[in-house]
Amino acid sequence: MAQYVYFFGGGKAYGNKDMKDTLGGKGAGLAEMTNAGLPVPPGFTISTAACNLYQQRGGSLTPEIETESEKALGRLESLMAKKLGDAADPLLVSVRSGAKFSMPGMMDTILNLGLNDRSVAGLKSKTSNGRFAKDSYRRFIQMYGNVVLGIDKERFDHELNAVKKKVRAKADLDLDEKAFDEVIQRYKGVVQKETGKPFPQEPREQLRGARDAVFRSWMNPRAVTYRKLNDIPHDLGTAVNVQSMVFGNMGETSATGVGFTRNPSTGEKEFYGEFLQNAQGEDVVAGIRTPHPIADLEKVMPKAYKQLRDITTRLERHYKDVQDFEFTIQDNTLYMLQTRNGKRTGVAAVHIAVDMVDEGILTPQEAVGKVEPQSLDQLLHPIFDLKARAKAAIAAKGLPASPGAATGAVVFTADDAVAQAAKGKRVVLVRMETVPDDIHGMSVAQGILTATGGMTSHAAVVGRQMGKPSVVGAGSLHIDAKSKTLKVGGRTLEEGAPISIDGSTGEVILQELPTSPSEVLQVVSGTLKAEKSPLFGKFEKLLGWADEIRRLGIRANADIPRDAKVAFAFGARGIGLCRTEHMFFAEDRLPHVVKMIMSAARGQKGLDLTQRLKERLDEAKGTQGGEIRKEMARVQKEYGRYMKDYRDALKKLLPMQRADFAGLFKEMHGTPVTIRTLDPPLHEFLPKREDLMVQVATLRAQGEKRNRARIAKLSETLRAVEELHEFNPMLGHRGCRLGITYPDLTRMQARAIFEAAAQVAKKGTSVKPEVMIPLVGHVEELRRQKKIVLDTAKEVLGDNPSGVEFLVGTMIEVPRGALTADEIAKEADFFSFGTNDLTQMGFGLSRDDAGKFLGYYQEHGILEKDPFVSLDAGGIGQLVDIGVKKGRAVKPSLKIGVCGEHGGDPSSIRFFHSAGLDYVSCSPYRVPIARLAAAQAQLEKPVGD
Amino acid sequence: MAQYVYFFGGGKAYGNKDMKDTLGGKGAGLAEMTNAGLPVPPGFTISTAACNLYQQRGGSLTPEIETESEKALGRLESLMAKKLGDAADPLLVSVRSGAKFSMPGMMDTILNLGLNDRSVAGLKSKTSNGRFAKDSYRRFIQMYGNVVLGIDKERFDHELNAVKKKVRAKADLDLDEKAFDEVIQRYKGVVQKETGKPFPQEPREQLRGARDAVFRSWMNPRAVTYRKLNDIPHDLGTAVNVQSMVFGNMGETSATGVGFTRNPSTGEKEFYGEFLQNAQGEDVVAGIRTPHPIADLEKVMPKAYKQLRDITTRLERHYKDVQDFEFTIQDNTLYMLQTRNGKRTGVAAVHIAVDMVDEGILTPQEAVGKVEPQSLDQLLHPIFDLKARAKAAIAAKGLPASPGAATGAVVFTADDAVAQAAKGKRVVLVRMETVPDDIHGMSVAQGILTATGGMTSHAAVVGRQMGKPSVVGAGSLHIDAKSKTLKVGGRTLEEGAPISIDGSTGEVILQELPTSPSEVLQVVSGTLKAEKSPLFGKFEKLLGWADEIRRLGIRANADIPRDAKVAFAFGARGIGLCRTEHMFFAEDRLPHVVKMIMSAARGQKGLDLTQRLKERLDEAKGTQGGEIRKEMARVQKEYGRYMKDYRDALKKLLPMQRADFAGLFKEMHGTPVTIRTLDPPLHEFLPKREDLMVQVATLRAQGEKRNRARIAKLSETLRAVEELHEFNPMLGHRGCRLGITYPDLTRMQARAIFEAAAQVAKKGTSVKPEVMIPLVGHVEELRRQKKIVLDTAKEVLGDNPSGVEFLVGTMIEVPRGALTADEIAKEADFFSFGTNDLTQMGFGLSRDDAGKFLGYYQEHGILEKDPFVSLDAGGIGQLVDIGVKKGRAVKPSLKIGVCGEHGGDPSSIRFFHSAGLDYVSCSPYRVPIARLAAAQAQLEKPVGD
Repeated sequence: MAQYVYFFGGGKAYGNKDMKDTLGGKGAGLAEMTNAGLPVPPGFTISTAACNLYQQRGGSLTPEIETESEKALGRLESLMAKKLGDAADPLLVSVRSGAKFSMPGMMDTILNLGLNDRSVAGLKSKTSNGRFAKDSYRRFIQMYGNVVLGIDKERFDHELNAVKKKVRAKADLDLDEKAFDEVIQRYKGVVQKETGKPFPQEPREQLRGARDAVFRSWMNPRAVTYRKLNDIPHDLGTAVNVQSMVFGNMGETSATGVGFTRNPSTGEKEFYGEFLQNAQGEDVVAGIRTPHPIADLEKVMPKAYKQLRDITTRLERHYKDVQDFEFTIQDNTLYMLQTRNGKRTGVAAVHIAVDMVDEGILTPQEAVGKVEPQSLDQLLHPIFDLKARAKAAIAAKGLPASPGAATGAVVFTADDAVAQAAKGKRVVLVRMETVPDDIHGMSVAQGILTATGGMTSHAAVVGRQMGKPSVVGAGSLHIDAKSKTLKVGGRTLEEGAPISIDGSTGEVILQELPTSPSEVLQVVSGTLKAEKSPLFGKFEKLLGWADEIRRLGIRANADIPRDAKVAFAFGARGIGLCRTEHMFFAEDRLPHVVKMIMSAARGQKGLDLTQRLKERLDEAKGTQGGEIRKEMARVQKEYGRYMKDYRDALKKLLPMQRADFAGLFKEMHGTPVTIRTLDPPLHEFLPKREDLMVQVATLRAQGEKRNRARIAKLSETLRAVEELHEFNPMLGHRGCRLGITYPDLTRMQARAIFEAAAQVAKKGTSVKPEVMIPLVGHVEELRRQKKIVLDTAKEVLGDNPSGVEFLVGTMIEVPRGALTADEIAKEADFFSFGTNDLTQMGFGLSRDDAGKFLGYYQEHGILEKDPFVSLDAGGIGQLVDIGVKKGRAVKPSLKIGVCGEHGGDPSSIRFFHSAGLDYVSCSPYRVPIARLAAAQAQLEKPVGD
Repeated sequence: MAQYVYFFGGGKAYGNKDMKDTLGGKGAGLAEMTNAGLPVPPGFTISTAACNLYQQRGGSLTPEIETESEKALGRLESLMAKKLGDAADPLLVSVRSGAKFSMPGMMDTILNLGLNDRSVAGLKSKTSNGRFAKDSYRRFIQMYGNVVLGIDKERFDHELNAVKKKVRAKADLDLDEKAFDEVIQRYKGVVQKETGKPFPQEPREQLRGARDAVFRSWMNPRAVTYRKLNDIPHDLGTAVNVQSMVFGNMGETSATGVGFTRNPSTGEKEFYGEFLQNAQGEDVVAGIRTPHPIADLEKVMPKAYKQLRDITTRLERHYKDVQDFEFTIQDNTLYMLQTRNGKRTGVAAVHIAVDMVDEGILTPQEAVGKVEPQSLDQLLHPIFDLKARAKAAIAAKGLPASPGAATGAVVFTADDAVAQAAKGKRVVLVRMETVPDDIHGMSVAQGILTATGGMTSHAAVVGRQMGKPSVVGAGSLHIDAKSKTLKVGGRTLEEGAPISIDGSTGEVILQELPTSPSEVLQVVSGTLKAEKSPLFGKFEKLLGWADEIRRLGIRANADIPRDAKVAFAFGARGIGLCRTEHMFFAEDRLPHVVKMIMSAARGQKGLDLTQRLKERLDEAKGTQGGEIRKEMARVQKEYGRYMKDYRDALKKLLPMQRADFAGLFKEMHGTPVTIRTLDPPLHEFLPKREDLMVQVATLRAQGEKRNRARIAKLSETLRAVEELHEFNPMLGHRGCRLGITYPDLTRMQARAIFEAAAQVAKKGTSVKPEVMIPLVGHVEELRRQKKIVLDTAKEVLGDNPSGVEFLVGTMIEVPRGALTADEIAKEADFFSFGTNDLTQMGFGLSRDDAGKFLGYYQEHGILEKDPFVSLDAGGIGQLVDIGVKKGRAVKPSLKIGVCGEHGGDPSSIRFFHSAGLDYVSCSPYRVPIARLAAAQAQLEKPVGD
């Protein structure tokens, strides 16, 4: 028969610290401490499995578990030589929830359970303290009434205040036993009125009620939300800890407190915490009395203090981690009520991990395993002043798309952002959604705030790319870009109004808040010397250890030299994705890009026809020459203008792209640079179709005649846009499909890459360009694009390029590409998984549209995680596995990486590590996270090289 | 060493009829006939592999092949005891191409090769016929000059006419030897002038030239196009047949002709063909002299005629197929030059196959294998009068989307189509593209013509569904729906102008053409008695045999009772896909649908909140009742209007859907009916976003004030449309994602299905509804939708529904669905592969947009076939295989079908058969094709039940 109840006490426990799954964190800690011989009040833990059963059975446990609990209670009673509800010397217990992961939102604690009208007298006589007994009873009724019976806390406060007023008491401490008797009567009246039943007097009924309340609290909306936000599965369940009470409120020789073995905020090594004499645990956090720093305990109870320091130091060494502990001193005797690994800030985590290695507590490997990779993010972004932040009201909440604190004046357009920034103003760019045109504005803004879009929307992706704090999809904002107003929570903001956003929490605050910059960033950007930052030293040390452990290479996604420089400084050794299209949006290029697009279809056709005719002319060797020349003249007449425009535009773009690539090569110091040929559908570079339609319609309605010229011009653009219009651009004419239908485009890009490579190599830097063909679904697509690249390389570099080693590979981002990876691998030097598109196509989810139901899916437990944030290992992961296996089966040396957004997500990195990838590529600011996560993946599941 | 040259002659050949891959059809036939002891002029075949080598080597063969050819030529010379180019008694040969599949567009024939200035004298003396010899020589120069040297035929004709004029000859026959001598001189002058070189005198050079011309002709644009249209791989190559000449033009005892063993047009059993006395093969088809019916040959050459009939009858029995043969009689001796299986119409194919069973030539199984499934289509559609059609000019060409002939007056809108049809006019609906709103117009039109869209565009799919002739994507049409004009090829048509379209060829003709209806359709629709149509009898007989053979079940995609009736009559035993959304577009429903959509988001939210509050109220048992009721009132206030609208609209739609389903159940007579819950994104039912924007902008520009009411109304709709707008609707909020976020919608549809089932079952017809949940990518989606369906079934039918057996299953159309089929199968009674969407997502191709590059891909050989027409077995097929294997691993009894467009495509059916599916479902008019194709698949690759 399965065991559901685990006893601890008398120096021995049935559980231990490794049984968090079954006992929860608190239960496992109590068992471990008991076994270690520490002074822990005895009790028992009802397991998480019982919680799951409770939910499944719709709110009840099996008779077997009830019997098992009853037996454990009997044992507790006999160990303590007291009985629950006893009229002479009652056993009192606390009931606490405790899941595997510490979780706010669940029921916390019920103290003094077992008190009733009879046993309160026993407590009084046993402690010779009537006031204490009655106060304990009224506290219990209030807690139980609120937490178990669901009665508003205010109802009790109302009665308490009435009594206080009546007896003219200022504080609770002014109330005497008699006053508490009246409070108890009034509290019981509240319970009778609100529930229709009297306050339960039967202690075993109290215990069952409290236990069930813990189980129910597992499904609290707040708890559910917390789990969702923190990727905690819903089926873990919580345990219930029933523990005999000890009292810190039995006079001045008693006390209670909480503490950390080190400072959880800075990581410094100091005994950190607070205590109160003559108090129960809840008083320390309730804020009614001000607790004392824990150092003061040494003065008032030196023996207990020394014991506490000894025990907690032992516990820290035992658990090899900072401990967050609770204790009670009952009449000079110390009891440990809880210990657990302490939560800490990212800064503290780095600090502590490195210190513990210096102290010999941890090995470097263990230290690497102790720091949550995600928490490194906190070291890389400005943070709000904590006090100012705590006082500020949250006006709206969106998705925490790119971490960090940003504060400044509201601007509504990218141009305004640039204009205001030029005047030295700090601005936050507020948009319905951002588009590639907005990049200049985004890059000068302190932060980006949008009303729509998800974690992988344009604003989010670019925000992370730039390391720019971003909050996206804040649905309660009403933005009117036309009138430049933002309505939120009944207020209307105009341009220039102050605003702050917290990209780590998604919160929006309607005031300016002081921020302080990231020390690490200051060092990386050169404004602070590394030697002056001990934190930076520890950060580097930790990541250095991680680098020695990890098997995965780490590259960055970077489009421009500035990003590449940051990425390299953060430890990226290669670029895994340079999106060439980002360069097309620059102000000096867009006109050429538009010219290129407007002429591409007919221009390319003309070039192709001319080429074919030339070949025929060669072949015919004089025969039929006249006819062919006539045909060539016809082609020239029909397509000449477009051919010229197309060629001219490409010629203009060539040197610009070449300069971009040269910059990247320089910044990456001889590490590989993966450059993707043009990917997005061409209409993305043109004005929006519906905007043009509206403009034309408006001009027509205002007078066809007088607007004739403007209508004609707009109509020409509209015609081009219409020709390029697509119903599902994601699945449209993009990626290598562009390069195939417009081979001269690929030719120009390849030329720019190789000319830049030759130029940089000439100066002595070795260059490793990796040309990447996007959206390949069929090997033939890659074969043809590769031929263009190789032919161009030969033209530019000749047969023996010195200092340039290049590869030609492909993205695997179309499901069919993964499925036919064996065929594709024959033509590819490398694969790079584009897990964004692979998720979009494999899951049938448009990243831009999925917000409409993905939130609902997560809220309702249909999907545990957003598959665009964490790779869906069970589904999309299969395509990665298939791609890797099939690719390597054909070409064992195939280099394989990933360059989707998932490359910077720790749980996805774990998957990529196991799948046998060679590297992950992520946005520059996630490089440290990826380095650490990759090391942890190797520690968890070592994979040989 | 590989063999590239295959000799035939002297009663023995190295090849045989099964070597078409190597020898081509013609070469294999010559070898087979030689081995059968038939009188075949000897020669040799250079294999298709040599052709491929030739292309790969950029236009040359290996020395080994040259040597092999030389040897074969030597052997031919010694067998014939003549030498090529011999001055006394020259060997002359013909050179012909011959691929595996007969193909127009390739080089056909060069006769008399081996003639030159010296050997022409030998021919003259040997035949004692100077005129014949010179005529042969000049024909050879002309043919060679044109075909091999690429000189315009007109240049030669010009010289011939000049000589004719000079000697005052009316016809070629009036020219004597001397005149031909001058023609020869002039022809040689043409060659010299055009190529800069004299006419090649060296016979071996002539032979190499002719051979290479054949090889080159394989890549002719016309040949390439033909292969693409007919799904013939480009790497098959063509063989070259070099055969010693026999002469049908050696006087009145000689003749040449072509024929069929049965009428290839009607299938009737008659000796069918034509011949000419004193002529060479090309004269029969050249149209200069009118050939005689082959029956007349009996009178002029009775012995040869009898021999020919004997031989061809033997050949027909030998090949078990109609033979298309060529012969030459040289001086009363019959030579067979070619035999091959004859091409025939669909009607003839059925006729002949069934007749041959009756005659004992074929078994029923063999007969089933002889008819190309696709050709059955010709029996199901009206056809043009052949003579009128032949004379008509083709004005434009589009894709042959739905076969059949349609003729009528042009209309530009669905409403106009209905209005004109109501007046008794036959109309052809001409649209830029069709949308679901157009269905009423499409259903009354004779045919549908669109300027955009591919083979799976809306017009194409619905056209096939309705069995309506459709031509789509005719890009050269310029349609202006506003001014109701159609510009094509310099002409402008207005409404009412006559037009005809041929849905089998994609051709558009600007006149009315007489059509005759399909006999089979007349029987099926009840206007012709089956007994009166021998063709129908044979059609039924053949399909009856097919039904006995096939393992795959055949169902139809049908949304309305009328389609179901047709499908059942064509032999569908079940509906594999009923798209419930098609019912939503009916005029009487759309307003309710729009109301439903406008209120759905807030209405459903209100209903959900209310439901949750009710549950809390029950749970609370009195506690907190007041607060909950207050909250309910708030919800009612905020969402009440939408809840009401939403519920009202659903209530209105319920009886309509119920009636539709009841009609389907009745027409399907107890066979399974698969009904898919709502699939398309909701915005498809609303006006187009850009249209609304333009309307609002226009009204604004015309005067905001006076148009205020209309602007407000349009703006409200626009807001709803904006909320539903999607960037990639294909990957958006559709399929089960609708049913999950709007559970009441699924509930309504399930209720309609089960109420209809109960209603029909009550009347004694057993009913088998199969409720199909679309777009499932995660098992949890199916689990939740299934729960709604099962709960509703229980409510409607109770625990023991009498006469109703239902299943709940899912479409597998998202790649992730196929990859996780093991999980999904646990919740599914059946799978139905949606191979359209699986192709879209697996290939990353939007069906609506792919036209932009898919044509280019096929033209340039990147893709062999349109993956929306024929399932991409190598890529998307893997997903089907994975889905089947994983699904059956968990649930061996899982019923699996396919309901995408591919269900009616023979090559895809072959794949589905091998993959182990239980059934395919296709549009009603493709059911006969599917029945036959499924039988052929089983014949090719028997799979047990």
